[in-house]
Amino acid sequence: MKSVLRPRTGHLLLVIDLAGTALFAAEGSSTAVQAHLDLLGILVLGFVTALGGGIVRDLLIGDVPPSSIRNWIYPAVALTAGAMVFVLHAYTAAINSWLIISLDAAGLSLFAVSGATKALEFGLHPLLATLMGGITGVGGGTIRDLLIGQVPKVLRSDIYAAAALFGAAMTLLCLRLRLNPVVASVAGIGSCFTLRMFAVYYHWNLPHAAG
Amino acid sequence: MKSVLRPRTGHLLLVIDLAGTALFAAEGSSTAVQAHLDLLGILVLGFVTALGGGIVRDLLIGDVPPSSIRNWIYPAVALTAGAMVFVLHAYTAAINSWLIISLDAAGLSLFAVSGATKALEFGLHPLLATLMGGITGVGGGTIRDLLIGQVPKVLRSDIYAAAALFGAAMTLLCLRLRLNPVVASVAGIGSCFTLRMFAVYYHWNLPHAAG
Amino acid sequence: MKSVLRPRTGHLLLVIDLAGTALFAAEGSSTAVQAHLDLLGILVLGFVTALGGGIVRDLLIGDVPPSSIRNWIYPAVALTAGAMVFVLHAYTAAINSWLIISLDAAGLSLFAVSGATKALEFGLHPLLATLMGGITGVGGGTIRDLLIGQVPKVLRSDIYAAAALFGAAMTLLCLRLRLNPVVASVAGIGSCFTLRMFAVYYHWNLPHAAG
Repeated sequence: MKSVLRPRTGHLLLVIDLAGTALFAAEGSSTAVQAHLDLLGILVLGFVTALGGGIVRDLLIGDVPPSSIRNWIYPAVALTAGAMVFVLHAYTAAINSWLIISLDAAGLSLFAVSGATKALEFGLHPLLATLMGGITGVGGGTIRDLLIGQVPKVLRSDIYAAAALFGAAMTLLCLRLRLNPVVASVAGIGSCFTLRMFAVYYHWNLPHAAG
Repeated sequence: MKSVLRPRTGHLLLVIDLAGTALFAAEGSSTAVQAHLDLLGILVLGFVTALGGGIVRDLLIGDVPPSSIRNWIYPAVALTAGAMVFVLHAYTAAINSWLIISLDAAGLSLFAVSGATKALEFGLHPLLATLMGGITGVGGGTIRDLLIGQVPKVLRSDIYAAAALFGAAMTLLCLRLRLNPVVASVAGIGSCFTLRMFAVYYHWNLPHAAG
Repeated sequence: MKSVLRPRTGHLLLVIDLAGTALFAAEGSSTAVQAHLDLLGILVLGFVTALGGGIVRDLLIGDVPPSSIRNWIYPAVALTAGAMVFVLHAYTAAINSWLIISLDAAGLSLFAVSGATKALEFGLHPLLATLMGGITGVGGGTIRDLLIGQVPKVLRSDIYAAAALFGAAMTLLCLRLRLNPVVASVAGIGSCFTLRMFAVYYHWNLPHAAG
């Protein structure tokens, strides 16, 4: 679904892109293992966590069928990652948590920026393109949480969706300033990633309503 | 998303329309405050409560991107209303409940009638256009309830969705009888609003299955 | 929504098709009765259980408005079945459970095969057409479970979605082997039905992650 960035920036982003899909799928499948779902549930949660955000965005901007439904490589990567978690979860559960947080922040950044860019290319107003970037980044995790009966983490936890929106807005601002698209993408990805990592490290949270 | 009515009835309905969006957003954001969500969750719940029903309807009838995604004014109003609740919720929580119920019934009525009218214009059968009116009226609140982990109120509480369906059906009946579209809209809005207010005042409920 | 099969196989499948819609609607409405929802909730749960899977599939493959929104006969059948459950649930609750399981397996089989066939006709890759078959079969029940606040049964219970995927894949394999479409459909429906019935009878389950 992140194909918009690929023609401009070549193989590196394709690799990062598929890595993001694989990582989000692995996270979703790990959640399914912890929720004691069976093999099918593990694959389904991996699939929706990795691809759900992009699918919702594509439905909303009118790119139908969604690109991850048109192109078998993304589902194949997501399902493979889920299958690997099923087999290897005893090992994946032991991976250093800062590595996971960093990879997750990287995936979030890329999804947010590519989602916002794609929405802009489909003619949306920058305010709404920013929202589409946020949906691309956190939509899959939201659907995953709903499926296992939890209030979506992004609605109550630390700065996660806000980082996605910040990165998306930064990219769109750079594009508005007529910067090179690659520069705009890197600026957005870097902004989102940096904000997310600082927020985790320093336990930053968004404010709650007073009283 | 209620633009169908606007060219016919001018600025008054646009004002009511935006007022309905603002009110539904404020209700959703107030729910988020009560559920102890953070600023982002407050804005998200306001957004989906106000615009979710119209977005689902537009996806179903094939008006993509949904009109509230194409037009930044509705999201801007919804997000502004949510931000005001965040700042002022100590005051908004004190608003007279009958005022809120009346405004909510007014918003429900307008959303139901405009949703049904739009679906009819997109070629749907009146039975399905009525359903689309109901979805427009209650879809946002349903998504909001799901996001905070509650069984949607419309599925179990008093006459709410039923009032939306009644108003939508009344409008479509008037249109079938070749009445003036403004008359049909007013008849539907009045029917929905009246039924809803009587239902609240007299504690009317739909029947449950016997036994 | 299963109209793809109809022109080829005539009235018999139309009857089975509507029977599947009615049965799924009756199941959804019975769930609503048990969850103490009111009349409207009973009709809504019947509607989404019967038609939700096909609607999601149609949104994803780009057949908008979804065929069950374009054609009033399916909603009419679903709502009628729901109304009958409302009136007669004391009797329907006493129906022999193996009869219900058999009819449900038949409906699942037909929905899975017709959903996969339709997705293939819309140009999807066979891997994704298989997934669309699974979504058509179990999507409605998944939405129903979410609406009443439960983790979807298909994510954790016995071989149900897996049977739908198996039947869908079998049909697509037969079509790839250039068998007659009717033969391919019958093979897929028979495969799904047989696997499902054996799974219930012998208590087969999908594996959970070890440890």
